[in-house]
Amino acid sequence: MDFNAEYRKRTAEIESVITSYLPNEEGYQKIIMEAMNYSFLAGGKRLRPMLMSETYRLFGGKSKVIEPFMAAIEMIHTYSLVHDDLPAMDNDEYRRGKETTWKVYGEAMGILAGDALLNYAFETAARAFDMEPQNAGLGKALQILAKKAGIFGMVGGQVVDVQSENDTAMTKEKLDFIYRLKTSALIESSMLIGAVLAGATRNEQNIIEEVAEKVGLAFQIQDDILDVTSTMEVLGKPIGSDEKNHKVTYVTYEGLEKSKADVKQLSEEAISRMESLVVKNEFLTELLRYLISREK
Amino acid sequence: MDFNAEYRKRTAEIESVITSYLPNEEGYQKIIMEAMNYSFLAGGKRLRPMLMSETYRLFGGKSKVIEPFMAAIEMIHTYSLVHDDLPAMDNDEYRRGKETTWKVYGEAMGILAGDALLNYAFETAARAFDMEPQNAGLGKALQILAKKAGIFGMVGGQVVDVQSENDTAMTKEKLDFIYRLKTSALIESSMLIGAVLAGATRNEQNIIEEVAEKVGLAFQIQDDILDVTSTMEVLGKPIGSDEKNHKVTYVTYEGLEKSKADVKQLSEEAISRMESLVVKNEFLTELLRYLISREK
Repeated sequence: MDFNAEYRKRTAEIESVITSYLPNEEGYQKIIMEAMNYSFLAGGKRLRPMLMSETYRLFGGKSKVIEPFMAAIEMIHTYSLVHDDLPAMDNDEYRRGKETTWKVYGEAMGILAGDALLNYAFETAARAFDMEPQNAGLGKALQILAKKAGIFGMVGGQVVDVQSENDTAMTKEKLDFIYRLKTSALIESSMLIGAVLAGATRNEQNIIEEVAEKVGLAFQIQDDILDVTSTMEVLGKPIGSDEKNHKVTYVTYEGLEKSKADVKQLSEEAISRMESLVVKNEFLTELLRYLISREK
Repeated sequence: MDFNAEYRKRTAEIESVITSYLPNEEGYQKIIMEAMNYSFLAGGKRLRPMLMSETYRLFGGKSKVIEPFMAAIEMIHTYSLVHDDLPAMDNDEYRRGKETTWKVYGEAMGILAGDALLNYAFETAARAFDMEPQNAGLGKALQILAKKAGIFGMVGGQVVDVQSENDTAMTKEKLDFIYRLKTSALIESSMLIGAVLAGATRNEQNIIEEVAEKVGLAFQIQDDILDVTSTMEVLGKPIGSDEKNHKVTYVTYEGLEKSKADVKQLSEEAISRMESLVVKNEFLTELLRYLISREK
């Protein structure tokens, strides 16, 4: 398999699927659709919908019912970035080389665009009930989508992360908690929803959740590493933003070398756990390897 | 029927139901649960869950499956107030006689508390799938919950409302659009979900949606009237806030007398439409009358 060619092909397919769920820009409230679509179309690796779709494929899923959930998870990821960038949060003016949503549309519209994306994620996911009204996995998938995005998932992680500025009482346990919730939660959500909708067994779901947790952790630590070692040209946003915000990160806490070693170990554990499954998806395994060794 | 006694009794029952769905305040992210619960418990008439529960009762609904949706609609209403009050939005420091969420917990936590409440609303509603996995109305109810809260509902109304500051191009059509989305949408959501989960026919659902639209409109116009005619002591928040924010409201657009007349007409139409149904709920009819003639 030519991974790079396959990766480009599948990324394009996913882009086509998820953008088809964006709202038309029309009506008195047109500006909010513009702000939502601006945020959503500002780039990104589409990692979460890709992991969802590949996990769905791994367990033999073949229906289009996965598509609204693929769009939904990317909308949730996008809303979290829109709100994270707000002046009262990280106060970032650039992301992926483009101006952030609040910078283009103003602060009030930045708040509302995030709200709108979060809400539209659930509106979009709920369209699956029209596609397969009898599918008993849909309720479960919606529960996962909500739980992993909320106070016991991503929002919970953001909260402790916001509080970790100048945190002199940081512990390894607390740092792992932040990373597990802030980043792993949506990766877990993506892969678990793929597994559930494809009819994976309970045991298979548990393995997938473990893999996703490790991948998420490794991914976030790699992000911290790049914030220190990369350049604005490669990254598309200012480097050193964690230091600017006085954030305690994995890198400031554990040091650069230990962080790099932990990324390696976590990714090896994730792949070995994935390979313990009877079902196989070669592309997905390669994808996990690729994500963790990325340079941006 | 002693309406006032019955109203107090049912309000207390609803308070008990919806607060039972609030999260425990624990874990590293404890502060966000505190901020959510502070916002949710800061008072309010619990109008939306009451309308949902009474419409459910109207069509013969008897199960507890309505409860997570009652809590969810109030969480969505609460999140919208928390974000509306933010400095970048209406910049309000008091609501219902208490400090607003951002004023107590800071601006970043105000944003996150709103996000958390919106997300938790869907997390809570999705618990209904554990209660009645076979109930085919749940998917539909979730679709209504999301659609009426989002860009084609409440958020859409907030967006045009924010833009209506100093709007010299305001029209009656646009004003009705704002009111329909900003306020009626969640009332429609409440009553429609009650109807759908109780198994109302398509025609009955349409009548309920019409009633709810009129009630919502009347309720919002009454709100504008009180913003001009009431006092801070009665209202629990500063009066004249619309004028402060240079908002074009129904009252500034149509004048006080026409606004009062329209409230009366809308409420009569709503009640007459409600009475066209074969099923009856005397308390619900009285409730609609009461809501529209309220003094705070």
